[in-house]
Amino acid sequence: MFDHHAFYISDGTAITAETVGHATLSQFEMQIEHVTLPFIENIEMAKKVVSRINQIYAANGKMPLVFYTFVDQQLKEIIEHAKAVCFDVLIPFTSKVELALGVTATPKLHRTHSMKTNRYDYRIEAMNYALANDDGQTMQNYADADVILVGVSRSGKTPTSIYLALNYGIKAANYPFIEDDMDELTLPAILKNNKKKLFGLTIDAKRLAAIRNERYANSKYASLRQCRMELREVERLYRKSKIPFINTTSFSVEEISAKIMSEMALERFNH
Amino acid sequence: MFDHHAFYISDGTAITAETVGHATLSQFEMQIEHVTLPFIENIEMAKKVVSRINQIYAANGKMPLVFYTFVDQQLKEIIEHAKAVCFDVLIPFTSKVELALGVTATPKLHRTHSMKTNRYDYRIEAMNYALANDDGQTMQNYADADVILVGVSRSGKTPTSIYLALNYGIKAANYPFIEDDMDELTLPAILKNNKKKLFGLTIDAKRLAAIRNERYANSKYASLRQCRMELREVERLYRKSKIPFINTTSFSVEEISAKIMSEMALERFNH
Repeated sequence: MFDHHAFYISDGTAITAETVGHATLSQFEMQIEHVTLPFIENIEMAKKVVSRINQIYAANGKMPLVFYTFVDQQLKEIIEHAKAVCFDVLIPFTSKVELALGVTATPKLHRTHSMKTNRYDYRIEAMNYALANDDGQTMQNYADADVILVGVSRSGKTPTSIYLALNYGIKAANYPFIEDDMDELTLPAILKNNKKKLFGLTIDAKRLAAIRNERYANSKYASLRQCRMELREVERLYRKSKIPFINTTSFSVEEISAKIMSEMALERFNH
Repeated sequence: MFDHHAFYISDGTAITAETVGHATLSQFEMQIEHVTLPFIENIEMAKKVVSRINQIYAANGKMPLVFYTFVDQQLKEIIEHAKAVCFDVLIPFTSKVELALGVTATPKLHRTHSMKTNRYDYRIEAMNYALANDDGQTMQNYADADVILVGVSRSGKTPTSIYLALNYGIKAANYPFIEDDMDELTLPAILKNNKKKLFGLTIDAKRLAAIRNERYANSKYASLRQCRMELREVERLYRKSKIPFINTTSFSVEEISAKIMSEMALERFNH
């Protein structure tokens, strides 16, 4: 049973409303049922949303929390008549910017997560780059890379490369250190020649063994002993070669990516 | 030359501050230099940020706009002493939720974009699924799919599949209709058996030809005539087979994904 219902509503993607709502509500210890309703683009749809909200209130006596952004003022007013605690997510900041800068806002539909503001082509190009240069499958394109992630198998290279591409337009290649390399692990020439682009990932051995066991249960590859050995070798290499690195064990792909952007001083959409 | 500087600062990823800041500022017609500073985790770092902000103000006489979220109150107060227009991104909503529900917020570090709140394992599993089931390379796993995207080559299937996986933990396979299929295009048996999971992508022929020309310039594959023919055939199939579909030409991957989530009534992290 949920303590409360929260709605995220917009005539666009509702991503902004969701981000603010999730961030706000994550500070409270409550069981919340989250409902996202994007592209509420006409009066009929808006009225349906209102009756859905009102039904929940009628059923359990608790006002839903409604986070929203609307460009269309008429639709917004319809939503604001719902029996709910309403949060117009951008209003507090918009008014303050207007006051501080002495300029007036000119809202546009689908402003934030549209093609125009998101440098669509850069991101798709970067994603194609990440997929083509995943897991060391080609290494002749490293001159184009913004960053080359290195690490042992299953330390988080692929998701991080793709996240960097999709969200920031960063061209991230990745290169795996495999078991055959582990006797006296050194940097291959192709990586040495791109040393300033290297960023290392590492992970706790127990976590790595658990991840590998999901794929290849009870294999040597997934054994704790093997994982420990590989991680010891790569971490030694990172230190010796002064490659910046991060232990990904307790971080999400967002956190890992934000740290890499920051430590490598990468600029988004810089092509 | 920039009209203004905007900073997005946090002791976490700064993704929430960025989202709110970008959405707010996209409503204003100004040239803005955007600077994101994540993981400002100690007093020394916070003080450096403040002097960076103050230098900009001293240099051009315009107060930077600073959007931030901090769990650490001491760090937050340091930032708030900068010569800037300050936006504590969560405060307006947090106070209102506290009032409305009669409960108190208990902020935690890295709350929003951390592993715990992001269902990390689901998302990585979904991403591995998307990569393994990209472009029709395997079709025996469709029973596990939440959605199967179909469309001609380069209509946006791969980026959308991966975005759905990384952001929502949705298992999205994708299947390409290729030229050999185009004479009397019908649904292959494997797709017929999973018909309720199908979602079609289409795109304007000119845009498709431009995208294909980047890869294979002046090929038959990239010709406007070929693109028109393929798109006419797939759109006819979508209509005949009652497959919901979207024209991706003017939409970002966020918008396409949000529309698919909504139209297919997909639930995030439902595994």
